[in-house]
Amino acid sequence: MVTVDYSLRRQVVTPQRVGAFFGARSIAIVGASSSSSWALNLLGSLRLGGGVEHLTFVHPKYSVLFDRPTIPTLRDLAEPVDLAYVMVGPNRVDDILEDAGAAGVKNVVVLAAGYGETGADGRERQQRLGERAVELDLTIMGPNTIGFINAVDGISPWAVASHAPPLVGPVSAVFESGSMARATYEFAQAHGVGSSIWASVGNSVVLTSLDVLEYLIEDESTRAIALFLETVREPDRLFTLGRRALEAGKPIVAYKAGRSEEGMRSAMAHTGAVATDDAIVDAAFRQAGIVRVESIEELVSTAGLLGHSRRLPRGRRMGVVTSSGGGCNIIADLAQNNDLALPAWHDETVTQLREHLPEFASVLNPLDTTGFGHARARPRPTKAEDDLMEIAVTDPGIDFMFSMMTPLPPAPPADPDFIESRMKIIGEIVEAAPVPIFLSSNTCLDVADYPRRLLADNGLYLLPGADLAMSSIGHMMRWVDQRERILSRPALASHQSQAAPASAPTGTWAEDEGRNLLSAVGVPLVPARLVTSAAEAAEAANAWPGPLALKICSRDIAHKSDVGGVVLGIEGPEAAAAAYRDMVATIAARVPEADVRGVLISPLRGPGPELLVGVTVDPIFGPVLALGLGGIWVEVLGDSSLRVLPVDATMVKEMLRELRGAAMLRGARGTDPVDLDALSEVVVGICHAALSVGPALDTLEVNPLRISAAGIEALDVLVTTRPRKENDGE
Amino acid sequence: MVTVDYSLRRQVVTPQRVGAFFGARSIAIVGASSSSSWALNLLGSLRLGGGVEHLTFVHPKYSVLFDRPTIPTLRDLAEPVDLAYVMVGPNRVDDILEDAGAAGVKNVVVLAAGYGETGADGRERQQRLGERAVELDLTIMGPNTIGFINAVDGISPWAVASHAPPLVGPVSAVFESGSMARATYEFAQAHGVGSSIWASVGNSVVLTSLDVLEYLIEDESTRAIALFLETVREPDRLFTLGRRALEAGKPIVAYKAGRSEEGMRSAMAHTGAVATDDAIVDAAFRQAGIVRVESIEELVSTAGLLGHSRRLPRGRRMGVVTSSGGGCNIIADLAQNNDLALPAWHDETVTQLREHLPEFASVLNPLDTTGFGHARARPRPTKAEDDLMEIAVTDPGIDFMFSMMTPLPPAPPADPDFIESRMKIIGEIVEAAPVPIFLSSNTCLDVADYPRRLLADNGLYLLPGADLAMSSIGHMMRWVDQRERILSRPALASHQSQAAPASAPTGTWAEDEGRNLLSAVGVPLVPARLVTSAAEAAEAANAWPGPLALKICSRDIAHKSDVGGVVLGIEGPEAAAAAYRDMVATIAARVPEADVRGVLISPLRGPGPELLVGVTVDPIFGPVLALGLGGIWVEVLGDSSLRVLPVDATMVKEMLRELRGAAMLRGARGTDPVDLDALSEVVVGICHAALSVGPALDTLEVNPLRISAAGIEALDVLVTTRPRKENDGE
Repeated sequence: MVTVDYSLRRQVVTPQRVGAFFGARSIAIVGASSSSSWALNLLGSLRLGGGVEHLTFVHPKYSVLFDRPTIPTLRDLAEPVDLAYVMVGPNRVDDILEDAGAAGVKNVVVLAAGYGETGADGRERQQRLGERAVELDLTIMGPNTIGFINAVDGISPWAVASHAPPLVGPVSAVFESGSMARATYEFAQAHGVGSSIWASVGNSVVLTSLDVLEYLIEDESTRAIALFLETVREPDRLFTLGRRALEAGKPIVAYKAGRSEEGMRSAMAHTGAVATDDAIVDAAFRQAGIVRVESIEELVSTAGLLGHSRRLPRGRRMGVVTSSGGGCNIIADLAQNNDLALPAWHDETVTQLREHLPEFASVLNPLDTTGFGHARARPRPTKAEDDLMEIAVTDPGIDFMFSMMTPLPPAPPADPDFIESRMKIIGEIVEAAPVPIFLSSNTCLDVADYPRRLLADNGLYLLPGADLAMSSIGHMMRWVDQRERILSRPALASHQSQAAPASAPTGTWAEDEGRNLLSAVGVPLVPARLVTSAAEAAEAANAWPGPLALKICSRDIAHKSDVGGVVLGIEGPEAAAAAYRDMVATIAARVPEADVRGVLISPLRGPGPELLVGVTVDPIFGPVLALGLGGIWVEVLGDSSLRVLPVDATMVKEMLRELRGAAMLRGARGTDPVDLDALSEVVVGICHAALSVGPALDTLEVNPLRISAAGIEALDVLVTTRPRKENDGE
Repeated sequence: MVTVDYSLRRQVVTPQRVGAFFGARSIAIVGASSSSSWALNLLGSLRLGGGVEHLTFVHPKYSVLFDRPTIPTLRDLAEPVDLAYVMVGPNRVDDILEDAGAAGVKNVVVLAAGYGETGADGRERQQRLGERAVELDLTIMGPNTIGFINAVDGISPWAVASHAPPLVGPVSAVFESGSMARATYEFAQAHGVGSSIWASVGNSVVLTSLDVLEYLIEDESTRAIALFLETVREPDRLFTLGRRALEAGKPIVAYKAGRSEEGMRSAMAHTGAVATDDAIVDAAFRQAGIVRVESIEELVSTAGLLGHSRRLPRGRRMGVVTSSGGGCNIIADLAQNNDLALPAWHDETVTQLREHLPEFASVLNPLDTTGFGHARARPRPTKAEDDLMEIAVTDPGIDFMFSMMTPLPPAPPADPDFIESRMKIIGEIVEAAPVPIFLSSNTCLDVADYPRRLLADNGLYLLPGADLAMSSIGHMMRWVDQRERILSRPALASHQSQAAPASAPTGTWAEDEGRNLLSAVGVPLVPARLVTSAAEAAEAANAWPGPLALKICSRDIAHKSDVGGVVLGIEGPEAAAAAYRDMVATIAARVPEADVRGVLISPLRGPGPELLVGVTVDPIFGPVLALGLGGIWVEVLGDSSLRVLPVDATMVKEMLRELRGAAMLRGARGTDPVDLDALSEVVVGICHAALSVGPALDTLEVNPLRISAAGIEALDVLVTTRPRKENDGE
């Protein structure tokens, strides 16, 4: 996606400007025709919103549209409108922008497609559009957008069908796909998740999802933010905003496609995005404190939960009450899937619960209220599940309470007193409870108007079915954990690319050069000598009894063993001298053009636990650290952990814990446990070495880093760099 | 759960009897009071159903109920009703059953709880209830059930709130949880998944879920079956019915909780179920051709898809058309999660698609129709996505087509002609297409009445959102694969427990006894000699140059190495003799009570690839085979594959392919590939050996089975059996 360079456009996308954009009380609709479904939908949405005070139609051909007098161009406005919604084709957009600029209009929505998503020509047109907009001091949303909904103010320039006035609520959302903005909005509204701002940024030539995000972090009506991303731009800003949102206590929940190769290919085709490894996106989101979800339904349900919850659980210990025995089993399974604990009730709680249960009932967590409750007379209009929830929530061993409610009536019953009084009592129970209470329906059904009002009037939010409820609570707890972890330490400064040493080579470095780089930052290495004669080789062998490894050293040989440049297990000075001579001769014959710096001789290490430590450069996120255990762990199982640099030792320890083979580091299968503190410091050192190469870095790989209990040392190091011109950093 | 012994109750649960049960046109409601919410709900459901012709109220205290004359007992019926719905408390149920028997009533629903779910007393009462029912020739559903819905005939004795007449459709369902029956029904109805039979079997004292399943396989209105199980009973019958359903082309989709330890504990508490390893349930379902799903929503969506699809895809190659670029990316990710392929369109398809797309569009799969289509005039009332779907579906490289549709209007628009004509054309496109077309909405929203009718009138089914759509299609393809695999080979006869040899020991077998068992069925073993003197040990060492393994042989020593009963790496006759003497002395000192049969001497094998082959006995499913690779695969990763016995070599090969470490068998990481045919035969042999032990078998474990390319041999074998009395088979 083409976005105008930030330094130019920042003046038109400040939170103040974005706030004014969403607050437009007077709107001009440019280019609507009375038969266009876009226009009909837009008008319908604006009417349902009800908050736009002045609507002006602009069209050069009609004098009346939708029964209103129409002006030919924006230049004919008596005074500037707050926002122009431009519905003309792409070939006429440029002129309209000039009109807008001349008329003093500051905010423009551009519906037209046919820009950056269409290939090189379209990208160029889009780039010009953005540059011109900024020159004209215009904040543009789009092109290729359906618009936005500001539910709080009832401002809904939203060019797809709306069926009801927008529900106001705590969740705001930004989308890089119009159709998904629409789909997600409809799902949210149908499930009682109200919003402050719902925006589709389209091709983002000026206003981007991060601009909107920055505004939403400040927007008082927004308590949780849903993001739908197709690409990630400005990663440094994502980290900054992510931390700011954590500090503000506003969770960011994100959906981003591209997990699969096909998904990535598809996103690249639709958006012109740069390919990035999805595992890096995953790592970056976690580092930024953003919770990533797996479906649109989860996006809504999780943001809804986080937005509606005035209190957050301190931990993962869940108490459950439901009137369904079958539901208990389902919830227990889902709890485990989402790392939620189900502690047994304390004795005192059991005693109190027993008073409300038939004698035969098992007082377990999850608690089945049994059909018994139906028959029992109650002093107040509640069901057994309500009374039991009120008791169970006082249990000192739980961090939060969950109840899967029996279905609410879809419409007012003949006598609504019972249900209305009951919901009021549930609201009071939730309000008074010592820990948060979360409620869900059984399955993901729409919440009809009547039950939605019953819930909303009593400050309640109903999660959409047990399945989404449990995964949303799981995501909530991940957010709670991430927030604590990230805010407990200072923000790491974004890595500063240092100028590469003038002498640094381009392409593959000779291994001794890589060793010098590591050594300079204190990374322990297996001892080695670079020898340039058979006599020196013999001398080295004398210094190190036991088997040796010989490796050719040349910038021209990346894959040493393919050309006979590695020999292992040589013992004694004569053998070393002979091996030296053989290797030099072999290389001379097989790679005659190679500039050979010598042969590196080291003691050969026996088999033992090994780590692979690699720093590669992602086109979006820059240098990324990958850690994995040697052997089948990385090679067969692909078990690795990633972080965008910079990292500190605490983060490296987190990475090591994430490995599926983490048990091996702690001494599983008879191995000795590894000193994780020391290991983490070494890995941080390797990262420093990588960053010290500067913007030319292509890859730095220590493979393997030997991690026996006796000590840690890098056995092999490979550094490659790219020509400096292509990589002059920011 | 207590169920009356099958041989007694089979007469009252034949498919004929079950069919008559569900077809009850005259119903007596026993024990209803006009204020009971159960009764009000039951009456409401019956009214909405509309198919019950005669409704009689039975109550000893009232002469009129719900404005109808009421008789005191069932004995006062002029002629037997088809079904009695009994709403009395558990203490009065027995008398009502006697009345029913006396009145010639054959079918009874028992609502009351307080039976098997309440502990030992309740189980006893339930058992008596079932036995008496069978004596009285009564088919009982329940106790602790809400009843059933027969949508085809409008017969809905269903004691929870209903809000609309039941939708008729191809999906039938059986539940072992009333609240989940209700929740699932409501989700299904809200998503346009109509039913034939929807039944909650409650505590299943007479009528069980498998009885209903057997009927549904024969029911002509049922095309797919959803099962909600809390326990598995009659595993042999499950396999038989599973195969019969495959032969009938009726998919069975099952939800069963108990994946987690908590879930299993919860299920055991609510149902008195026997604990079984969930991984065994998983394996058994696959062997029975039953597709297991992970949520209620998936249960409905998958059964709905399978029930509504008149054609099934031949393979996993999916073509996708949607008007959402963001949707394309989501679908691509979901396709990969569910093992669906997205082949590129053939050249000819691309040429044809291009005619309907703007010049700039990328003609990819998934295909984004782009916003362009909206603007274009079309010769017939379609959207671009429809025309493109019609073209794309002819592509010879796809097995089925998927389209995520733009939302349908929730109510008739001002001019309904366009949408109604369009849906008709879509119906025709689907009908005429060379491969199946599956449609979905964007997210899991309810389908309102108007769009539901639009869809149903044109033979269309709308999957509930992309996420559930893709997982349901994935489940469908698993069913297609399973069906082909299972029906391509003859049913394996249920294993016949042979009488154990009279001489077979109880408890731990000595290793030579285990070796003899394997040897008798031709399983290759590492050579070994049982020696009983130092001289014999020396002789054995002479026969086998190289290192040896010595193991103590005794029924009294299960864990040999714990007591010094294993010595490895002995070489030469003197060392062997000395090791023999040491071992015998050590054992005599440390386990003086052990009856030692001798020392087993074998050549010691070096490190190499190994398989763990174990047969254990599950309390429900009986003997189960577990396979895993040695080393970290089983120990750290828990990577194993399970099957309920018997298995054949083809099934063993499937198991080996399922292992995450399967690549190791094919020669990954420099190992030689293993002869999988030979290996499978050996594993089948081990299973035969296990079954030959008879009902006393507790466990037979070959750990390890050496599987070097040079050959396959069992290195160690452990057999344990239980006292024969407890295990006299069927």
